Amino acid sequence: MSHYPQSLLTLIKNLSKLPGIGEKTATRLSMHILKASKKEAFDLAASIQIVKEKVRFCPGCFGLTDQELCNICQDSKRNSNQLCVVEQTDDMISIEKSNAYSGLYHVLHGVLSPMNGIGPDEIKMNELFARINKSGISEVIVATSTSVEGEATASYIFQELQQKNNITITRIASGVPIGGDLKFIDQLTLKRAMERRYSFS
Amino acid sequence: MSHYPQSLLTLIKNLSKLPGIGEKTATRLSMHILKASKKEAFDLAASIQIVKEKVRFCPGCFGLTDQELCNICQDSKRNSNQLCVVEQTDDMISIEKSNAYSGLYHVLHGVLSPMNGIGPDEIKMNELFARINKSGISEVIVATSTSVEGEATASYIFQELQQKNNITITRIASGVPIGGDLKFIDQLTLKRAMERRYSFS
Repeated sequence: MSHYPQSLLTLIKNLSKLPGIGEKTATRLSMHILKASKKEAFDLAASIQIVKEKVRFCPGCFGLTDQELCNICQDSKRNSNQLCVVEQTDDMISIEKSNAYSGLYHVLHGVLSPMNGIGPDEIKMNELFARINKSGISEVIVATSTSVEGEATASYIFQELQQKNNITITRIASGVPIGGDLKFIDQLTLKRAMERRYSFS
Repeated sequence: MSHYPQSLLTLIKNLSKLPGIGEKTATRLSMHILKASKKEAFDLAASIQIVKEKVRFCPGCFGLTDQELCNICQDSKRNSNQLCVVEQTDDMISIEKSNAYSGLYHVLHGVLSPMNGIGPDEIKMNELFARINKSGISEVIVATSTSVEGEATASYIFQELQQKNNITITRIASGVPIGGDLKFIDQLTLKRAMERRYSFS
């Protein structure tokens, strides 16, 4: 490695810190950057700096934004009576891509995990309850993942909110994925799919 | 994609331009940069800019350097009578890693390829001959690749230099790679290995 100029070595080292990028890939990327136009390289460098300077959590939903409020919180056409609770910003984006939901979001930035010392204060849980108390939300859709922690977090939210009148608390359905072959589906999922079976209507 | 903030989208777009980085990987890298410390992200951005500003061709060997001359051309301990001709800077680094050579290099930055309009003027060929004429080089080792163009380039260098007295022109050996299983070696390589067989000494 010492055969490269020092500044190229620094770039390779910094690129290697990215997830899934080893030394070989970092070297390949560095050589590309070296051969690329000055504009392309400087645009890349600038966009990294701008992202770190501009992108922050939306004070409404704790999703990502580079404005005062994120596009979704700003959008007056969305149904402000519905609130979908997700673990991470990625989950919010996955639901958005499905086009199945037009309400607002709340990103917890984690799940309850007492084993790892993560309680309600470590994630945006108190912010969730404060928001529900303040606004006219009539349905809370809990879309945390179906992992053990995700389910526990969903139960916690349900328990905390169930005394409240005029709020419906729902959980996203779990079962066999569309296009899923039954023989490849795990037993727990199949059990859940049988339990939550519904009548043709 | 429109669910991400604009500055994040710009970063994803710029990262996607790197070789082997698709939109999904670019998104994952962007999310990592977003979560990484400000120092880590700014160091990465700065190292991209520094590489573009500082790294250039060494005026001696046309390898990469961020100084006046590259480390190898600067090194007075190296054998300045030997000159190894390679296609690309990567080849030079591969040979350096092998620790099998202690002379100087000359990077052609390409191979002769008349089909693609690449003649001696398009690569650092004239610079090679000028350098050999000026300096006290006694051996030129042609280490271009064993592709058709690499072999043709090697022949060209041999023809141009063969009139010169007191210069030995050599070509790196080709044959069966060490650890290579004969049944996986192509016929041309095997033919070459048979032709260039040598006596045990």
